[in-house]
Amino acid sequence: MHIGIIGLGKMGANMRDRLRERGHEVTGYDRNAQVSDVADVAQLIEALPAPRLVWVMVPAGAVTDAVITELSGVLTAGDLVIDGGNSRFTDDFVHAELLAAKGVHYIDAGVSGGVWGLTNGFGLMVGGSAEQVERAMPVFDALRPEGPREESFVHAGEVGAGHYAKMVHNGIEYALMQSYAEGYELLEKRDDLIKDVPGIFKAWQRGTVVRSWLLELLVKALDEDPELREIEGFVEDSGEGRWTIEEAINNAVPVPTISAAIFARFVSRQDDSPAMKAVAALRSQFGGHAVKKAD
Amino acid sequence: MHIGIIGLGKMGANMRDRLRERGHEVTGYDRNAQVSDVADVAQLIEALPAPRLVWVMVPAGAVTDAVITELSGVLTAGDLVIDGGNSRFTDDFVHAELLAAKGVHYIDAGVSGGVWGLTNGFGLMVGGSAEQVERAMPVFDALRPEGPREESFVHAGEVGAGHYAKMVHNGIEYALMQSYAEGYELLEKRDDLIKDVPGIFKAWQRGTVVRSWLLELLVKALDEDPELREIEGFVEDSGEGRWTIEEAINNAVPVPTISAAIFARFVSRQDDSPAMKAVAALRSQFGGHAVKKAD
Amino acid sequence: MHIGIIGLGKMGANMRDRLRERGHEVTGYDRNAQVSDVADVAQLIEALPAPRLVWVMVPAGAVTDAVITELSGVLTAGDLVIDGGNSRFTDDFVHAELLAAKGVHYIDAGVSGGVWGLTNGFGLMVGGSAEQVERAMPVFDALRPEGPREESFVHAGEVGAGHYAKMVHNGIEYALMQSYAEGYELLEKRDDLIKDVPGIFKAWQRGTVVRSWLLELLVKALDEDPELREIEGFVEDSGEGRWTIEEAINNAVPVPTISAAIFARFVSRQDDSPAMKAVAALRSQFGGHAVKKAD
Amino acid sequence: MHIGIIGLGKMGANMRDRLRERGHEVTGYDRNAQVSDVADVAQLIEALPAPRLVWVMVPAGAVTDAVITELSGVLTAGDLVIDGGNSRFTDDFVHAELLAAKGVHYIDAGVSGGVWGLTNGFGLMVGGSAEQVERAMPVFDALRPEGPREESFVHAGEVGAGHYAKMVHNGIEYALMQSYAEGYELLEKRDDLIKDVPGIFKAWQRGTVVRSWLLELLVKALDEDPELREIEGFVEDSGEGRWTIEEAINNAVPVPTISAAIFARFVSRQDDSPAMKAVAALRSQFGGHAVKKAD
Repeated sequence: MHIGIIGLGKMGANMRDRLRERGHEVTGYDRNAQVSDVADVAQLIEALPAPRLVWVMVPAGAVTDAVITELSGVLTAGDLVIDGGNSRFTDDFVHAELLAAKGVHYIDAGVSGGVWGLTNGFGLMVGGSAEQVERAMPVFDALRPEGPREESFVHAGEVGAGHYAKMVHNGIEYALMQSYAEGYELLEKRDDLIKDVPGIFKAWQRGTVVRSWLLELLVKALDEDPELREIEGFVEDSGEGRWTIEEAINNAVPVPTISAAIFARFVSRQDDSPAMKAVAALRSQFGGHAVKKAD
Repeated sequence: MHIGIIGLGKMGANMRDRLRERGHEVTGYDRNAQVSDVADVAQLIEALPAPRLVWVMVPAGAVTDAVITELSGVLTAGDLVIDGGNSRFTDDFVHAELLAAKGVHYIDAGVSGGVWGLTNGFGLMVGGSAEQVERAMPVFDALRPEGPREESFVHAGEVGAGHYAKMVHNGIEYALMQSYAEGYELLEKRDDLIKDVPGIFKAWQRGTVVRSWLLELLVKALDEDPELREIEGFVEDSGEGRWTIEEAINNAVPVPTISAAIFARFVSRQDDSPAMKAVAALRSQFGGHAVKKAD
Repeated sequence: MHIGIIGLGKMGANMRDRLRERGHEVTGYDRNAQVSDVADVAQLIEALPAPRLVWVMVPAGAVTDAVITELSGVLTAGDLVIDGGNSRFTDDFVHAELLAAKGVHYIDAGVSGGVWGLTNGFGLMVGGSAEQVERAMPVFDALRPEGPREESFVHAGEVGAGHYAKMVHNGIEYALMQSYAEGYELLEKRDDLIKDVPGIFKAWQRGTVVRSWLLELLVKALDEDPELREIEGFVEDSGEGRWTIEEAINNAVPVPTISAAIFARFVSRQDDSPAMKAVAALRSQFGGHAVKKAD
Repeated sequence: MHIGIIGLGKMGANMRDRLRERGHEVTGYDRNAQVSDVADVAQLIEALPAPRLVWVMVPAGAVTDAVITELSGVLTAGDLVIDGGNSRFTDDFVHAELLAAKGVHYIDAGVSGGVWGLTNGFGLMVGGSAEQVERAMPVFDALRPEGPREESFVHAGEVGAGHYAKMVHNGIEYALMQSYAEGYELLEKRDDLIKDVPGIFKAWQRGTVVRSWLLELLVKALDEDPELREIEGFVEDSGEGRWTIEEAINNAVPVPTISAAIFARFVSRQDDSPAMKAVAALRSQFGGHAVKKAD
């Protein structure tokens, strides 16, 4: 199959490689000419046989909006656009409608696996019509890991379902990471008793209830830096985690661990906490408790 | 009434003053000779008419244990000890038994009001027998604020009930403070829209649902330092908050806001968070996300 | 001053009464003819002297949108609309712009106090231009409680600031309520030790750190029903609490207590929790733990 | 090696089987004569060659205390007791001292793997002296899964370190389960959009960041009952989760996700929530909001 990819960042470039390794022809376009196969989107469209299949792998939000809008102007009826980026599922409804006006089909594909996807394959959650999903199946099969299709690929529902599932995946991911991290701190704090924190995580890899891929990554990180001395406890967050909370609120779903994981990241990035300044101020007012003066 | 007080720190000294202002005779003992009325506990006991009433107002835990033990050796049958400190309610059972062996009575008194108690009066929650509570009522009436007794005093149950109620009071207090603090940060963060954060808290003092004494204290703090520039977001916690969580766990009571308030204080005291180092390490492992290198 | 009010529900009708009691002339319109002073909005507009002042007090969202849109068609340059409902602050930007196109001014007014506002007065947080806020001051002064203006009224910023402040107020309110509620359960659960739960809350009203208006309301509720036997633990939530979380997420503000309060309400309305079904299922899978079969 | 096991419940019996399958001689004692190899502890001791190795696998707390006390009376210097149950690590200190007085050695072994341990092997975290741990290694090697020893076994420190590590393991386990469960509810709630919830979990098994053994168990559970109709959202909790919170509090470690997971279990077991009754009562007091009357 001949596939176009727009966006050749870390993820897009890995996908191009993996698709080519599995026998697909891929033409990639990126604003960065050094990694791009073609000079512009027009050339990309020209290079692809109709009906075309264009995989979009650019940052969610404004950039994806711009790319989809541009594509809606140049693609023709029967073409198929797959948004493999981390778009919000509500954006999918807009993008699908925009393209549908030109007879262009749309699939949203949530993609998991990070930088390991190139070698391991990517977990895929897609939304769209059964017909279009079937049409793109050779691409999905090349991108996903070896093994039974249903263990790495799901057609989750109509347009939007793929990104919704990916959003929830990332919300869970945040909470899982925070869970291990709290355990790490509980072990690390008792260095009077616990003499081998990395060894404990290593030993959890087989037989235990908590074994997982994230655990293996933590083992790897502790192998490289047993006390995490080289790393600061400063953690960014991205759209999906936030949207997960917002959807939870919209649907009255209690998400105490996912929200705790997000809030911990917010706090990790603060030099000083306005909220805790207020608590310190209050405590000083009623108790005459000493406060730490800011420098 | 002639009352003995052991412990003349901030709280004990204020109580001595308030009791004297209201016509009671008070003999106070403190290890600090500069504030003490007598040289030692022996002199204190001697100064008091039998049956004696001794109010203990020293730090909870080891110090209170030591004082109660000492008192059990010198008091005589019919005397009454009131522990007004922040003891854990489970300690009360031990202390009461120790004294009962000598025929000495025991009341546990939870005291709220902080440094404002001297002028405003102290809120009181007490545990013990009806007879002993009645006997000490003149002391309680002098310590508590003006107004109907039931609005500032409660006989909550047998020994331990007073400190249990005080423990819960402090757990609530932690959560209330955190609630306002989160609101403060939400207002402060939007300085593009909100032009008068202190004015908002001030305006909440009458008519609103969130009006409270803590709110008034926050208004006071913001009057003194409208952007809380002089204060660091570093907050200690004391026994009661922690015991509240422990009792919640023991009794299967969900306490998400009280625990959140405690955890926020723990985080506020960390230079760097081991947990968030672990999250950053994980994120770097799977996503190739850049991490902030520790210095 | 002659004021128009649109919306004579519980809050709007109370405001009409309070304004009239304080000497203002009020013409109210409501779809319910039994409480309305006029037959329709056209009559209301006609009844008011230009430049008019119209206070809108209808449900936030679609209803408020419709009323503002209707007003933008019938009001004339120089008139002033005040939205006293619980609108989302982002809606204020839209409403202000819509009216500004006709030369009509706009103020957003967050109103707190519930059904007690009629007698106690309402706490007010407003957003808009200094000029318009000054113009409407007689109305604000009549609605707010007696006492210094700054203790019940704040001009928080330009349009949107009033409803933003009210949103935060309600977020705090949710967390405060949850804080007391957790304390209530901690006391109630230990009925072996605690013999007078209502008495404890009553005794916290003077002298303690946790005294507040909400505490007084809880005392009132426990006076009426000491074990809360007549009431089910089923709690609705409204827009402001949810928006508070959403804004917290948008602005990277950690709000663990406010979110915990919302989630507790979500859970309170569930017959069975899908999440806890999943946990039970997992537990059964790895531990062979017995599960409770659904009926 | 000839090993004694006390306690032949689900876990102990599985261990006996696994040890025998791997060539060890095992004499097991249980109060239930139907599963026991000997009539009483005396016979067990007699059957074992000195120096003896006795693995204790009985419920934590009082039962374990009783067994250790009994063993301290019948074992002789040089014998070794391994507590493989879910004892609190602080109990280990007491048990080790009790036995040391008789010259009997002690190892605490945290064991993970549930009912799957028989076939998969058990993850092991042990505390004790290097010498005794080395001595018992053939037992550990037979119990743990195939593969490198360090991936399923850790000597975490001196006595207590094994159970501390296991306690933290279980705290993490609780939070991981809750994380997936919140994701499940987010997916299940949007049945308008998401058409294959079990398929999504199934597809996460390869390639994704959230893949884990718990995920596989959830897939298995959803295979058996795709909508979890047969199961009630009622979840017990056991000691380790509670102790994790207690230790977190003792060591000032923030554990928002682990505590959220525990609290969710507490709530899942309540017919009605006293806390939410209090919130409903408050809401009714200030807002005139309708409450749901209890039946």
